Amino acid sequence: MKWKRSERLVDMTRHLLDYPHQLIPLTFFSERYQSAKSSISEDLTIVKETFESKGAGKLLTVAGAAGGVKFIPKMAEEDVRDIVTYLMNKLDEQDRLLPGGYLFMGDLLGNPRLMDRIGKVFASAYAETDIDVIMTVATKGIPIAHAIARHLNIPVVVVRGDNKVTEGSTVSINYVSGSTRRIQTMVLSKRSMQSGQKVLLTDDFMKAGGTMMGMKNLLEEFDCELAGIAVLIEAEHHEEVLVEQYLSLAKLCSVNEKARTIELTEGNYFSKGGN
Amino acid sequence: MKWKRSERLVDMTRHLLDYPHQLIPLTFFSERYQSAKSSISEDLTIVKETFESKGAGKLLTVAGAAGGVKFIPKMAEEDVRDIVTYLMNKLDEQDRLLPGGYLFMGDLLGNPRLMDRIGKVFASAYAETDIDVIMTVATKGIPIAHAIARHLNIPVVVVRGDNKVTEGSTVSINYVSGSTRRIQTMVLSKRSMQSGQKVLLTDDFMKAGGTMMGMKNLLEEFDCELAGIAVLIEAEHHEEVLVEQYLSLAKLCSVNEKARTIELTEGNYFSKGGN
Repeated sequence: MKWKRSERLVDMTRHLLDYPHQLIPLTFFSERYQSAKSSISEDLTIVKETFESKGAGKLLTVAGAAGGVKFIPKMAEEDVRDIVTYLMNKLDEQDRLLPGGYLFMGDLLGNPRLMDRIGKVFASAYAETDIDVIMTVATKGIPIAHAIARHLNIPVVVVRGDNKVTEGSTVSINYVSGSTRRIQTMVLSKRSMQSGQKVLLTDDFMKAGGTMMGMKNLLEEFDCELAGIAVLIEAEHHEEVLVEQYLSLAKLCSVNEKARTIELTEGNYFSKGGN
Repeated sequence: MKWKRSERLVDMTRHLLDYPHQLIPLTFFSERYQSAKSSISEDLTIVKETFESKGAGKLLTVAGAAGGVKFIPKMAEEDVRDIVTYLMNKLDEQDRLLPGGYLFMGDLLGNPRLMDRIGKVFASAYAETDIDVIMTVATKGIPIAHAIARHLNIPVVVVRGDNKVTEGSTVSINYVSGSTRRIQTMVLSKRSMQSGQKVLLTDDFMKAGGTMMGMKNLLEEFDCELAGIAVLIEAEHHEEVLVEQYLSLAKLCSVNEKARTIELTEGNYFSKGGN
């Protein structure tokens, strides 16, 4: 049965959003909708223009026999600003303050809509970077890693602090936690990555960067390359951060436990290459 | 500027998919598109019919002054079957077999597209259930919990095996792991849940159900109610499983380490209330 244009537009939009960063041949759509390729091309032009004017992302058209169309999630800068502002307002809530100057973030990391938006923010920044895998460390980086991964259409690998039987053979390294100076262990299943892969590191929080350095060292054990570092919140640190070329959405400047105040600024996302 | 119908359909589809289980007033769309409510209603009828015929989900219309439209993700049974079949074929791969008869699942749990589909499968089954929160236990249940949560528009809480400073005050319980009979601890941040909330439990794997029982006991400490249990893979167990009313997608019947064979069947999803 031949589909009407209006039905095709709805279904096509859904399909493209469901398969980001994936080349879809025009024949897929023309067969699905029993419609001529010329009609499909016109549909795609409408989708493309609407996506681009409303900040959903880009629609790349690849010409030729092996061609097709690819949806690249890209968030408009004003939408990124809205999310960063929302995040900073949330982080600024006094009752997040925990003993030791830590901030409670469980509700934010457990908010699937917020994680999805943050995933799209980082996926926008790394849309043109060649990335094969996203790596994070258990537990709190996992929702962020998955959110970014879904928008970039790449797998997630999770580094653990302990060795579990369900991981099979593993590679482990020791690293020094940047802020506490304690020696810790990182374990990653051998079959998680292949040599030569390009890896984006991500985590919810970074202070001295010790955990990131640990992951970076782990990459070397796997003969993999660092493709970038995405951090939700970085904390002001008196010494130099151990890693470079990271993007952060917010920066925790200072916490006063006695006065119960939290001082935050924007992260380096806008200055360092986001959008 | 007034939008054309074709542009409205594309943007409206994207917006509805982005906000599942959330009531969107018609005025939101009529203001966004500078269009009459009657046009918006016609658009929504097209979206509704396309979503329903292609197995994307349902579009509920709520009449009256406080009315609007709500997108309920619902997967068609044939699509659920495709995912269960895919999952079982993947699990059946010999090289997943680990010493002790465990199966390596890191690649599946790290596949964001698969997690998203599995999340939608469970969100379809629980679409009409009153659920406030999804609870899982670190680490491997997290991607599944977030995927379900995103399609149901509810938050995730993560139970840990250890106490971390970043959790604030916590409630902890001891439980007996069903298969190893060891006593273990579960810790949950006090501010994660409020009394009276209805909670869906989820995890990647369930054998005797000890971990699920532990989470169930934890719910009681918070005066919360069990709303359901969603398990990716259950394992055949010689005794009765400790919890009832769970849904599973696949069942691991037996593993022969010497012959390197894995025997799997469908879980109870299709017989016990999915779709």
